[in-house]
Formats: sequence, C-alpha cells, structure tokens
Amino acid sequence: MKYVFGHKNPDTDTICSAIALAELRNSKPVRLGELNPETKFVLEYFQVQEPELVEDVSDKDVIVVDHTETKQSADGIEKANIVEIVDHHKLGDIQSKDQLYVRIEPVGSTATIIAKMFKENNKELTEKTAGLLFSAILSDTVIFKSATSTKEDKEIAEELGRRLGLDPMEFGMQLKKAKSDISSKTDRELIESDMKVFDSINTIVGQIEVVDDVSDRKQGLLEEMEKIKQEKNVDRVLMMLTNIIKEDTELLVVGDKELVEKAFKTTVENNSIYLKDVMSRKKQIIPPLENANVS
Amino acid sequence: MKYVFGHKNPDTDTICSAIALAELRNSKPVRLGELNPETKFVLEYFQVQEPELVEDVSDKDVIVVDHTETKQSADGIEKANIVEIVDHHKLGDIQSKDQLYVRIEPVGSTATIIAKMFKENNKELTEKTAGLLFSAILSDTVIFKSATSTKEDKEIAEELGRRLGLDPMEFGMQLKKAKSDISSKTDRELIESDMKVFDSINTIVGQIEVVDDVSDRKQGLLEEMEKIKQEKNVDRVLMMLTNIIKEDTELLVVGDKELVEKAFKTTVENNSIYLKDVMSRKKQIIPPLENANVS
Repeated sequence: MKYVFGHKNPDTDTICSAIALAELRNSKPVRLGELNPETKFVLEYFQVQEPELVEDVSDKDVIVVDHTETKQSADGIEKANIVEIVDHHKLGDIQSKDQLYVRIEPVGSTATIIAKMFKENNKELTEKTAGLLFSAILSDTVIFKSATSTKEDKEIAEELGRRLGLDPMEFGMQLKKAKSDISSKTDRELIESDMKVFDSINTIVGQIEVVDDVSDRKQGLLEEMEKIKQEKNVDRVLMMLTNIIKEDTELLVVGDKELVEKAFKTTVENNSIYLKDVMSRKKQIIPPLENANVS
Repeated sequence: MKYVFGHKNPDTDTICSAIALAELRNSKPVRLGELNPETKFVLEYFQVQEPELVEDVSDKDVIVVDHTETKQSADGIEKANIVEIVDHHKLGDIQSKDQLYVRIEPVGSTATIIAKMFKENNKELTEKTAGLLFSAILSDTVIFKSATSTKEDKEIAEELGRRLGLDPMEFGMQLKKAKSDISSKTDRELIESDMKVFDSINTIVGQIEVVDDVSDRKQGLLEEMEKIKQEKNVDRVLMMLTNIIKEDTELLVVGDKELVEKAFKTTVENNSIYLKDVMSRKKQIIPPLENANVS
C-alpha cells in the first residue's frame, strides 16, 4: 500500500491534501508529526480520522504532497520509491529514483490542485473530502489574504463552500481562532509548530499566526530561538509573528542580523523588525533573504 | 522574452518539445548545442527553423523541457528564474527560486505531454508543430520499442500520423536512418552525440543507435572513452551500442568495471558486455547501476 504524506510539522493543507489525494489514488494517508489545533478542529468538524504517524519511509512506494524539500520530508525519503508529487511551493531538492508524476502549480494551497484533480478525473467529492479541501485552502491562503493566494484558490473554495453550505470568511475565522490559541502552548511548542529549515541560507524560519498582542511572549520566544540556533547549528533563527487581522508581521531575529537587514533594508532593534503587509514566508521572507545572500 | 530549452547534447525530443511549448507559451525556443543529423532531418522535413544557440541563462525567465538535471542544463540555470518545467524523466536536482508550474509524467517522450497540453488548452496544432511532436515521440520511444514507451505515446503519435498522412513505422525508420548514419562522424563525435553525466554514480553513459555491425569502430571508441574518463575525472565511461533492429545493446566499459559486473551480474570481457532486450539508458542501465552502488 502506497503512503501519501505532506511535510513535517504538519499543517492543515498538508494533512487534508494527503487524505484527499489518498482517496483519489486508493492509497494510505499518513502524517509525519503531531497535528496542530487547527487541523484537529477540522478533522473533528468533518468527522475524519487522524492519519497514522509514520517516521521512516525507506523502500516504500510513496506519494509526496505539499513539499519537495528533503529536510521537510519523511526520514528515508531518499530510499523511497516516489511515484507522484503534488505541490504548490518552489521546487526543492527531493529527487526520484525512477520516472514519476509531478504536478506543481503556483497557487495558494496544494488542496486547490487536488480539488482540480478530482474534477479532471470525474471523481465525485464526498462531503467529508470537500470539507477537508475547503478548510485547507482557507487555512493556507489565510482566507485569501496571503501573497500566494490566487483567483483560482478563491473560486474553488467558494464552490466547495456552496456545496457545504459554509461561508468561507466565517468558517475561515473559526479555523484561525482554533489555530491562534497560543496561550496553551510553551514557547518551544509555538516555534516548532511551523518551523522550516532553509539550507541555501542556513536559516530556520518559524511562523505563528496571531489575532492580538503577543508582546508578553517575546522574551521567552527569543530565549528558545537562541537554544534552537545552537542545537541546529544555523546562522540565524527567525520567527514570524503574523497578525492575520492587521495583515502584518513582526519578525524576531536571533543570530546573524546582517543578512536580514540587507534583505529588508532596515535595522534590527531589540531582535525585531516590523514588516507591513507581509504574511507569506514563502513569497515575502525567503526570496529577499536568498537574493541578499547571493548578491 | 522567456527562453524555452531542453538538455545539452540536444536530441529530437528536446528540440521539438522546446519549439512546440514555446508556441503554446508565446516564448522563444533556444538550443544548448549542435543538432544531431536526425533532428536536422526533422526540421528540414517540416520546414522549421533551427532554434538559436544560447549558452548562459543567468537572470533570464526560462521554461525547461525534457530534463531536471543541472549538469544537463544551461549554464547559469541556478541563477535563472524557472517558471515552468515539462519532462518525462525521473526528478533530478534542478531547484527553483520561486513558485512555478511543473508537469512530469512517466511516458516515453516529453512531446507526448506537450501534445496533451495543446489539447487541454484547446489550441489547434499547426501542421509543422504536429510534425515536430510526431517525430519527437517516434524518436524518443524508438518507434514504440523503448522500455519507457507507453500506450499513450503510441496513441498520440498514431493520431498525429493520421493528421499528417504519415505512417509511424515508415517515418520512424526514416528518422532512424538519418540518425544512425555513423560513418560520417569521428569516434569523439559519436560518443558526445548523446552523452550524459550521472553524478550519483560518478559515471558517464553515452548511447548511439545502430542498424548494423559497428565492430570496426570499437577500438577507436574505447580509446576516446579513456580520454573522456581522464578529462571528466569520473569512475567509468560506458557507451551503449544499441541495435534498434535486433533490440539489444552492447555496452562498452572503460574504467572501473566492478559496479557494472555487479549491476548486470556478468563479466566484462574485452571492455564489453552484451545485454539482450536492453534499449533504454534511463530505465535499464541507470537504475541497476544505482542500485548496485547503494547495496
């Protein structure tokens, strides 16, 4: 039985896309880590079972969704037989041993592509699967506000919403409320809830979405970031505190700050810079850092 | 203006796919090297102009076809902005800076996928473009005989053939005759006409398709392979002499022979092994070598 999985530190798009694509391919969805509160809320809402935890995929036939970076993937991925990849990020370093299917599109969520694949295959969406894809699009596009969100994401989510009798804005806010309940988490858990390693710039970038002031957590977060920097031996650890109401980001910076200052043409003060209209790590944080690194 | 290009040492699929996709994307097809006699025959037959030669693509917007290996790609590919990839090989090491379109399918030629894209976009094929795609499929699938050839390649080529009033077998033999005229080439030119570097096994593998006995060229080929081994500093240089009538391959071996013996469970004698029913480098030569290398 083929495994279908998204990235480590799974988010709603990674989990829901894996479950939906597994249905289309008669395969088994699995997860590479603990689910976040938002994803748990979605699975409970649509009464879908949590996928099984898998850590090593050596020698397995696998379908990869929502990432193409080895660092973000299952252990043993380089020894697995990758038969298919569906993603919406830039192309990373995962390689395959044999011919395969790959479909990557520049849209706001992997779920958008998978919803299209059901249509193209004339495969009816069950209510549950429609609910998962609807939630994943709203989550990954920050209710169509993220810089990577496209017209296509919005049209498909609206179509799914009509089918489900759910309003995208209203249901999206429910998701965000479930996700941004940060009081129950330790500083470490907050950072690790959505943390990615970017080898090309030897940098770790985490992100949390918040709906109100979190300044009382800053000192604790900075201390944990310092520990992570030592453990992972990277040049810097960045943490995006993205306010989804104000649509801005406070970027916390631990370690080398020169590259950050060069990339965003500003000065790091008290380990922090303010970025107006910035919400997307993929589109608005990583490219400027990479460009500053080569130039 | 975006560039569209296939791999170095261009073959008919790489050139024809680049020209056809450039038409679909209003872009400019370019080539990364000299055309082989078969491809020249095709462009003359359908009266299509040879694409311009380009060597460095730094800072350009580019569309990549028929490969995803940096070593096979244009110089400066890591500094280019890759907006789309269409391919039928295993996924290699090319990475992108930003989100993009990728479409890879396990079929016998890139042209097969591009013919489908014209259909999906309801874009009519001109006679010239139909001719290019028809030729590319016949060439890359060795008239449907290669191990990577699929039912889909055959159906699409047959459909294009009906449109053009050309018989696939008959026209395919014309292509092969144009390609396998080896008498006019030096040993070096024969090896370099279709030579690829495989970093994972530090090996160069070349291939020529022949229709009759070439034993009088063997000594000269082995001497050139030895020189290439020194120049490129690889562990071994292999050369597939693939007879497309008998559907077999004589594999010439220069350098370390242990991996070859382990992969094909046979003994290298006089720098040569015989491989019955083997015609595909991608499917029948590289995977056994890679597997022998890790095990």
